[in-house]
Amino acid sequence: MTHARTSLVVALTLVAQLWAQEGKPLQIQQQGSFFVGGHDVHSDTLSATGTRAPSGTITVDQVYVHYQIPVGVVGAPLTFIHGCCLTGKTWETTPDGRMGWDDYFVRNGHAVYVVDQASRGRSAANPSGINSVRLGKAALDRLSPVSSVSHEEAWTIFRFGSEYPKVFAGMQFPLDAQAEFWKQMVADWVEALPTPNPTVPALSELAQRLNGTILISHSQSGIYPFQTAVLSTKGIAGIISIEPAACPASTDDMRPFAGLPILVLFGDYVDQSARWAPRMKTCRDFAQAANRAGARAEVIALPDVGFHGNSHMLMQDKNSLQVAGWLLGWIDRATAPRHR
Amino acid sequence: MTHARTSLVVALTLVAQLWAQEGKPLQIQQQGSFFVGGHDVHSDTLSATGTRAPSGTITVDQVYVHYQIPVGVVGAPLTFIHGCCLTGKTWETTPDGRMGWDDYFVRNGHAVYVVDQASRGRSAANPSGINSVRLGKAALDRLSPVSSVSHEEAWTIFRFGSEYPKVFAGMQFPLDAQAEFWKQMVADWVEALPTPNPTVPALSELAQRLNGTILISHSQSGIYPFQTAVLSTKGIAGIISIEPAACPASTDDMRPFAGLPILVLFGDYVDQSARWAPRMKTCRDFAQAANRAGARAEVIALPDVGFHGNSHMLMQDKNSLQVAGWLLGWIDRATAPRHR
Repeated sequence: MTHARTSLVVALTLVAQLWAQEGKPLQIQQQGSFFVGGHDVHSDTLSATGTRAPSGTITVDQVYVHYQIPVGVVGAPLTFIHGCCLTGKTWETTPDGRMGWDDYFVRNGHAVYVVDQASRGRSAANPSGINSVRLGKAALDRLSPVSSVSHEEAWTIFRFGSEYPKVFAGMQFPLDAQAEFWKQMVADWVEALPTPNPTVPALSELAQRLNGTILISHSQSGIYPFQTAVLSTKGIAGIISIEPAACPASTDDMRPFAGLPILVLFGDYVDQSARWAPRMKTCRDFAQAANRAGARAEVIALPDVGFHGNSHMLMQDKNSLQVAGWLLGWIDRATAPRHR
Repeated sequence: MTHARTSLVVALTLVAQLWAQEGKPLQIQQQGSFFVGGHDVHSDTLSATGTRAPSGTITVDQVYVHYQIPVGVVGAPLTFIHGCCLTGKTWETTPDGRMGWDDYFVRNGHAVYVVDQASRGRSAANPSGINSVRLGKAALDRLSPVSSVSHEEAWTIFRFGSEYPKVFAGMQFPLDAQAEFWKQMVADWVEALPTPNPTVPALSELAQRLNGTILISHSQSGIYPFQTAVLSTKGIAGIISIEPAACPASTDDMRPFAGLPILVLFGDYVDQSARWAPRMKTCRDFAQAANRAGARAEVIALPDVGFHGNSHMLMQDKNSLQVAGWLLGWIDRATAPRHR
């Protein structure tokens, strides 16, 4: 399709979808939350202030999952996994108050599962590695690494512009609501965790429980669905990796990806980013290798399908529901019964 | 009413409610999430590992709010605030997989707002006080206090029994699903925060935005709605404090509570707990003092209204929806137009 024709189709699709949803209540069949993964550990450094007992058992490495199942399910369940320094909030109401992807995909017939990565948000972190230093039981250089990413550093990583506070021409992130976005960012314990991240086996447990979910990851978590497939392909109906920090290497064993529909999705301005350009290249190499092994992988940059100005946080950009509408189509095609 | 008659009424009410909801889709008019509170701070110790820039700006003290507004609202908006070492998950699906209070009250016509306290869950904590020690910029005894409460200690605090692993006779917490409950517990940064907790001014902002909400707190957050009312009574339609760790002292200024409907609610076995018995006594003293100043405060232990066997986590006990049904009635009476 030509660029103009693609844009027209996108615009008409959006109008139709908004018209269908205008003022319409959302009908939920079931909603709730639960955990996957997790195990008990004993610690003698749970607390260092004397107000609480330092010794005892806690449960860590579990992953919080919130879900909604609409009336009239018409597609595969979707599992959303956020990226660095963020939580499941990523997929909810945008900073400027528009509908989040969680709500959008439920309204379009998909059961939606949103997780908080292990040691993030509502998934417990373990403070023992901090208190052990405070209590003199471990050396200072053993202090648990816990980091926050500053607004200034995030600006470049999230491709709002080439450097803080410059803005890419035509960039679609809602900068008028930037203060609300900064509130979404949280401290990140990821460097205190083993590889693969405990989120990965938890996702495998979730996929098997859902018996056919599309894992939709972002940025830091971009690699997790691939790592999950390496553990087991059971329950994985497809992978959508949005702006992954890493794809599998093209020299890795590709057999876990045989037959799997895979979309690696990037926004705009990638070639202007020293961080992201090589990553997209690695993902293209991976997709080629995976396809040689029987996968159905594609790497798409949004400008190639008619969307312009998207940042790294494309699920919150001003055209986020147009992109979501396009994704709906990809999901329908990817999960449709195939005639071989 | 006699105990037997009260129990019969409760049982019939529950049957009627469950019958009305059986298989019925939930109709949501609007749902989403946003933040209240929060401010920017500069730090030179955001990270200590060299992988991220140590200097920059982050936003802290904001409070995450998730909300659902049902079709056909018939009551005041409810704001739920969780307790120590827990998150907003407290009010969602119970550990044994039954409907949470968030879902229940939405299905019964209330808009429901669920928060994560400042520095907990999806509300960012500040790691600077950890990394400043790691980077040699602060002494070891300045290390941020971050604690977890062990299963063993929580057992007694939450009154599952007199001590771990004993169980009170007739206790209603779903111990068969105890492993799932332990996964709800998270590390607590509360000792690193000022008093009042930053959650309190954030709740005031939320109440004013909702223009008439009932603040429903639990345990550690029990005192927060009272502290919020001291800041400003604007937007507060009532207070339900469930098993508060503290009530205001009876010698405090009671004027902020004049005219306010207040319920302080306790479960069972309080008189068998050296931790909780004196707290209930303090709350009774507070209620008397508040009422002398024109409040409409009452302290109720659930056994006094026909519910037996409730733990500190009464919103998750096996009879949680029966207790919720009773609370619905209290809310209706408390917020009904009054003839004076």
